[in-house]
Amino acid sequence: MNIYTVKAFGTDAPDADLKQMNIDRREVTAKDVEIDILYCGVCHSDLHTARNEWHGTVYPNVPGHEIVGRVTKIGSEVTKFKIEDYAAVGCMVDSCRECEHCREGLEQYCEKGNIQTYNGADKHLNKQTFGGYSERVIVDEDFVLHVPENLDLAATAPLLCAGVTTWSPLKHWKVGPGQKVGVVGIGGLGHMGVKLAKALGAHVVVITTSPSKIEDAKRLGADEVILSTDEEQMKANVNTLHFVLDCVSAQHDVNAYLSLLKTDGTLALVGAPEHPLPIAAFSLIPARKNFAGSTIGSIAETQEMLDFCGKHNIVSDIELIKMQDINNAYERLLKGDVKYRFVIDMASLKN
Amino acid sequence: MNIYTVKAFGTDAPDADLKQMNIDRREVTAKDVEIDILYCGVCHSDLHTARNEWHGTVYPNVPGHEIVGRVTKIGSEVTKFKIEDYAAVGCMVDSCRECEHCREGLEQYCEKGNIQTYNGADKHLNKQTFGGYSERVIVDEDFVLHVPENLDLAATAPLLCAGVTTWSPLKHWKVGPGQKVGVVGIGGLGHMGVKLAKALGAHVVVITTSPSKIEDAKRLGADEVILSTDEEQMKANVNTLHFVLDCVSAQHDVNAYLSLLKTDGTLALVGAPEHPLPIAAFSLIPARKNFAGSTIGSIAETQEMLDFCGKHNIVSDIELIKMQDINNAYERLLKGDVKYRFVIDMASLKN
Repeated sequence: MNIYTVKAFGTDAPDADLKQMNIDRREVTAKDVEIDILYCGVCHSDLHTARNEWHGTVYPNVPGHEIVGRVTKIGSEVTKFKIEDYAAVGCMVDSCRECEHCREGLEQYCEKGNIQTYNGADKHLNKQTFGGYSERVIVDEDFVLHVPENLDLAATAPLLCAGVTTWSPLKHWKVGPGQKVGVVGIGGLGHMGVKLAKALGAHVVVITTSPSKIEDAKRLGADEVILSTDEEQMKANVNTLHFVLDCVSAQHDVNAYLSLLKTDGTLALVGAPEHPLPIAAFSLIPARKNFAGSTIGSIAETQEMLDFCGKHNIVSDIELIKMQDINNAYERLLKGDVKYRFVIDMASLKN
Repeated sequence: MNIYTVKAFGTDAPDADLKQMNIDRREVTAKDVEIDILYCGVCHSDLHTARNEWHGTVYPNVPGHEIVGRVTKIGSEVTKFKIEDYAAVGCMVDSCRECEHCREGLEQYCEKGNIQTYNGADKHLNKQTFGGYSERVIVDEDFVLHVPENLDLAATAPLLCAGVTTWSPLKHWKVGPGQKVGVVGIGGLGHMGVKLAKALGAHVVVITTSPSKIEDAKRLGADEVILSTDEEQMKANVNTLHFVLDCVSAQHDVNAYLSLLKTDGTLALVGAPEHPLPIAAFSLIPARKNFAGSTIGSIAETQEMLDFCGKHNIVSDIELIKMQDINNAYERLLKGDVKYRFVIDMASLKN
């Protein structure tokens, strides 16, 4: 295995700032695509992993799994990409490809665990995978996505995680015309959920604790906004929603949102609160409601979502930053001070 | 409205014993069936309601919603029953018949609330409905079931609640051949869940805290038994079940049972623990699992279940008691001291 060195931004310890470092990348093998990274989104998972908040982080850690760039090299057997193509990489760079779920195209639910873009097990270099806060990345073409030509490239980056993480449950639970769909938690994930559910033809109802978000929710495409702190508004909307996408990562009372579901409705959690959420039996039993969870999406779903976004001209609302500003961006992320996703202009790392 | 008096067993207050009393019944109207009650099952809901544990009990209260008997009178427009037919009544005696769910044959999820067999709103007599701890009951034929001739009549009574409450989720989540199905909580509901899931062709796995229940679980039809107190057994069965029917009414750790589900699996709760159950986000998110609830079943499902039980010769395991023993039976029910359902021989009330 031939390797070479690229510049990256990463961290050596849970309590250390991210800083510039060098990491190894493999030279492309037969099915690999080498991508010159142009933009990389900043996902809350990056921060959780850099700081070892989910435990299991192997250091040094180089985060970043919302990657868009341009193909600079391809292996001898690559058929889906050519040099100069735009290309994207999301949360996974490989999976076992043999289990029941891999065979049915649900690599995100690979029984052996998919190989994550960072802090995964790199079978080529026998160390942890390094993510998109770096100059280049080399990925098997089966886990590389095509990017629609018409979209703003920087604002496309967050589609690779925030986009597909909301797209996958919306598609799995068949959200579409004639349905009222609630979205809770208008941040990086939620703002994409609103845009995608609306474009899928649903009547979108944003449920928020913040009066300050009402206008913005409507700008993003919400047909209605329910202020969840207003008991009367909540009561008036009991049993009205076909589906709720719950993007809240903090502790919250899921029962209140379950009450808004119609019979047989599903609330799908994509945020990941740290502590268990208390669910009352009577929130589920009397109307056969479902409390579900969902994570990222398959490679096929990711491509489907990107193509859909190309067709409907959907991108993320972003704030472009330099690589050197990442530590400050993490602090602002913790305060929810971003509308709605930071994206790193990777030219800043190269200069 | 012509009325007449029948003997019944009921209670005047949450802390009073049940005792014999007289209640009014209407004479059959055009679509009514009068049933001479032969047997009535004793459901835990009877006790909850008699003692006002779910609040909202109107006194006097006459419980009983697992009713089988013989038709003694029919209204002028009744077409589905004739005098001398065996007939049964479950948890509902009416619904609005106009809402979305009633029109699609899901009366149990009637938007206005179905009319429960006891402690419901009796639109004929403008008082609370009285249940099956009584000599006779008069019910609209649309809410009366046919009883297969080949089944033991006393042991058929519990099918009307315990049977359909487990049947409905097994059918709704499409349990059948090729699937591994877990049943948690082997009591009145759970023992029916095992029998029905097995007859539906599933590989049935009972999960129990009690080594003493292993043999009985196998006798009921379980292919496997997991002792949930044995960490090794639980670990060995992670991600193996397609569906879990959770019949536990006490507080319990649902996360442990969710861990046994495969990707996209559902755990359906039919027991109703009093306090909220803490659910970890990571119990659901990584494999798109579902935590759902389900209540009783529709009239069509109830008939389908009775016909299925007739075909497969399935009844409840029961202990036959006299009406006068009901207070003692409630005390034993609280201790779980019954295998698996008390059924009242209503001849004891008539003599």
